[in-house]
Amino acid sequence: MKLHEAESPNARRVHVFLKEKGVEIESEPVDIRAAENLSPEFLAKNPAGRVPVLELDDGSFIAESVAISRYIEALHPEPNLFGKTAEDMARIEMWNRRAEFNFAQNAAMAFRNISGFFKDREVCVEEWGRVCAEEAKNQLGMFEDQLGKTAYLAGDAFSIADISFGVFYGFAEMVEKMTGVDFERGRPNLTRWYGELSSRPSFG
Amino acid sequence: MKLHEAESPNARRVHVFLKEKGVEIESEPVDIRAAENLSPEFLAKNPAGRVPVLELDDGSFIAESVAISRYIEALHPEPNLFGKTAEDMARIEMWNRRAEFNFAQNAAMAFRNISGFFKDREVCVEEWGRVCAEEAKNQLGMFEDQLGKTAYLAGDAFSIADISFGVFYGFAEMVEKMTGVDFERGRPNLTRWYGELSSRPSFG
Repeated sequence: MKLHEAESPNARRVHVFLKEKGVEIESEPVDIRAAENLSPEFLAKNPAGRVPVLELDDGSFIAESVAISRYIEALHPEPNLFGKTAEDMARIEMWNRRAEFNFAQNAAMAFRNISGFFKDREVCVEEWGRVCAEEAKNQLGMFEDQLGKTAYLAGDAFSIADISFGVFYGFAEMVEKMTGVDFERGRPNLTRWYGELSSRPSFG
Repeated sequence: MKLHEAESPNARRVHVFLKEKGVEIESEPVDIRAAENLSPEFLAKNPAGRVPVLELDDGSFIAESVAISRYIEALHPEPNLFGKTAEDMARIEMWNRRAEFNFAQNAAMAFRNISGFFKDREVCVEEWGRVCAEEAKNQLGMFEDQLGKTAYLAGDAFSIADISFGVFYGFAEMVEKMTGVDFERGRPNLTRWYGELSSRPSFG
């Protein structure tokens, strides 16, 4: 297996996941600043033009960080990160999606539309970036409330939901620096949880 | 169990899923036009304020359509809609996510920002809606190419990826009517696939 990837929050998600599993996979760099991910060669691997992409030994490809993680989970079931009971699986999926749709998508749209990081290849609408920055900040309240009730996002056990939200929460600090927006990251439960996460070897 | 829901593409996803499984669940309407989903009572069920939400018999709640579907899949494994082998699970997850992130998110942002459907509760930026409409249209090319190679999105078998993309593809027709955008839905492979999907009892 081989990971085609560039430095990004989604690549970090997969790397944290692999470290938690104790699995190593060869890495093949993709230069996204030079738009290598939009070349015909890369689009044959992933028509969506995104990284990371996992190349399997039969030469086929799996894109999307969570799909890659789920594949690794199926091959290496322990430690379990997607849940075992119907309820655990559902709650982990719910919180993983909230991390993505409620927070990460908004933070990413704020970053791209305000900073213009990819303005050579996409239309940036700064006004929309400001709307998303405000929404991302407001959504942190839901995560703060949850982490006042449970040790980890989906309950008592560390899961992929913590990996996703932890990586995006870390990314938000970089977004703040590059855009001047303030997500108010200093909430106490989030700070407690993020401190614990950051001390895991997988997050180092 | 009880589904708290309103008429929406995400509610339809769950209903199609349940029909494919042959499972019936009691429905409890939520008036989203009147912002009932943003009331303190509803936010206690789902702090993200979204529908549908599945109420379990112990009084706890599962939000997010795919989390609800995964819960149902765990209780009723057949017919299998999330995949059985590691590769099938990963490919279904990949295409379900492409349906969501590459197409549905863009179509939904086009709809909300151009039509102003929720302008009483969110800031709408029409320029961003136009950017997303163009992106949604362009992304259909990837699905068209895939459906020229395989019967269903993730391969030879019908899966939740087809449910997601089929429901969003149907929703796109409504978006076109309400916004005047043209997603160019007449591509031949998509038309073949959507015709087959529409003839399933679950999509009726």
